[in-house]
Amino acid sequence: MATEKKTVTAALLIIGNEILSGRTQDKNLAHIATTLNDVGVRLMEVRVIPDVEGEIVDAVNTLREKFDYVFTTGGIGPTHDDITAESVAKAFGRKLIVHPEAFRRMDLHYRQMGREMNEARLRMAKTPEGATLIDNPISTAPGFNLENVFVMAGVPSIMQAMLEGIKGGLVGGAKVLSRTVLCTLGEGDIAAGLGAIQNAHPDIDVGSYPQYSRGNFRVSLVMRGTDAAALDGCRDEVMGLIKSLGGTPQEINAEQEAANA
Amino acid sequence: MATEKKTVTAALLIIGNEILSGRTQDKNLAHIATTLNDVGVRLMEVRVIPDVEGEIVDAVNTLREKFDYVFTTGGIGPTHDDITAESVAKAFGRKLIVHPEAFRRMDLHYRQMGREMNEARLRMAKTPEGATLIDNPISTAPGFNLENVFVMAGVPSIMQAMLEGIKGGLVGGAKVLSRTVLCTLGEGDIAAGLGAIQNAHPDIDVGSYPQYSRGNFRVSLVMRGTDAAALDGCRDEVMGLIKSLGGTPQEINAEQEAANA
Repeated sequence: MATEKKTVTAALLIIGNEILSGRTQDKNLAHIATTLNDVGVRLMEVRVIPDVEGEIVDAVNTLREKFDYVFTTGGIGPTHDDITAESVAKAFGRKLIVHPEAFRRMDLHYRQMGREMNEARLRMAKTPEGATLIDNPISTAPGFNLENVFVMAGVPSIMQAMLEGIKGGLVGGAKVLSRTVLCTLGEGDIAAGLGAIQNAHPDIDVGSYPQYSRGNFRVSLVMRGTDAAALDGCRDEVMGLIKSLGGTPQEINAEQEAANA
Repeated sequence: MATEKKTVTAALLIIGNEILSGRTQDKNLAHIATTLNDVGVRLMEVRVIPDVEGEIVDAVNTLREKFDYVFTTGGIGPTHDDITAESVAKAFGRKLIVHPEAFRRMDLHYRQMGREMNEARLRMAKTPEGATLIDNPISTAPGFNLENVFVMAGVPSIMQAMLEGIKGGLVGGAKVLSRTVLCTLGEGDIAAGLGAIQNAHPDIDVGSYPQYSRGNFRVSLVMRGTDAAALDGCRDEVMGLIKSLGGTPQEINAEQEAANA
């Protein structure tokens, strides 16, 4: 290993009936995965669960034991189905309180809008006792952080703003880098050679992803690891393998990869 | 309840490092959720886990105990990172065998293409002992079904074709219907009345989903349940609530809802 940094792991808990019913296509997973990777935190598991207290309590407690960080999205609005804050409080065995600073911000926000800080909106100022706030520069109502759990909104624009605010405070390990090579050979033709390359590089994760869309077949061979030089060597071996089988390897960069995937 | 049909539940297990790394945006969850709902099966939990045998074994065994059906996507190709079949075999404590009918189909397919049925492709003919095949009309290599677990491809077009083939054989319960009403009132203004409506209709799941995109703010109020008449009554109450607060309720149908969400 070229680095002594430890692997820092995270789980994402997506809370919301609207994702499970198929009504809403989740747009947060990929953004959170890539943002965390930029600060050296690896997303290792995602769960999507309904707005049910027992499910949230169990999942939060399982995941915060298993991973360095847990991020949740969804369920922190003012309506009856927004039960994330009280469920996280139960998971930690803490009281749900009106957070003074959250109240101050929201009261000011609604005064400026000429709206009242009613009982429903007050729900959004509640956090487990001892939580610190996660800023919401878009609609004020904050998320919160308690130990290794970060509770964020489900609306993508708000979630992204919240994550932008907290990512600098995360303690990451080695950042995962990647190399991607495309070819049009069949996976079955490259599998043996690719498996040998994977075996020779146990610190690199070699993935093979076929794609049938846009009328064409092609395979993306993706190498992920923390050592840039080792990745370059592995990439050269993969390109050599493709050439040896009569194919034409094409390396693409991260931006092209994002557009391709 | 207008129906005596029981609730039939399902979990989805998405297997693949490429989803967790953020490289690939999952396109299967929403499709599976809506397809299952059409046959009266409710998606209750989704997990995304890496291509790691122990993780797959644990998740399959947890989910097949907890839900009526488990669907998996990903990890059934010919490369070294495709370990779903052997992991599911381990979860069930069964041997991984070359399935004779899978072999016959794939051998024929590759002969017709002028390609050889090599060791890598043979991996795709392997299933746990006693599994039945799930047809793959696109690229031949089948999925499989063992007890209440259905193992499908991760490539969306193939997954969709596989699900289309198996959905007729699923034993569903009552189908979940929905009504959706849009308004531009703040969630904090409708929350109290909406909570009262939810309390009056315990068999209906009333959800409130704010949306900030396209330069406008609006809220979708979604009512889900199995009794059409009860849903219509609940919808009327929600529309009445919005009017009483000075708003303009707009009901949209399922197709408009899908385009809106």
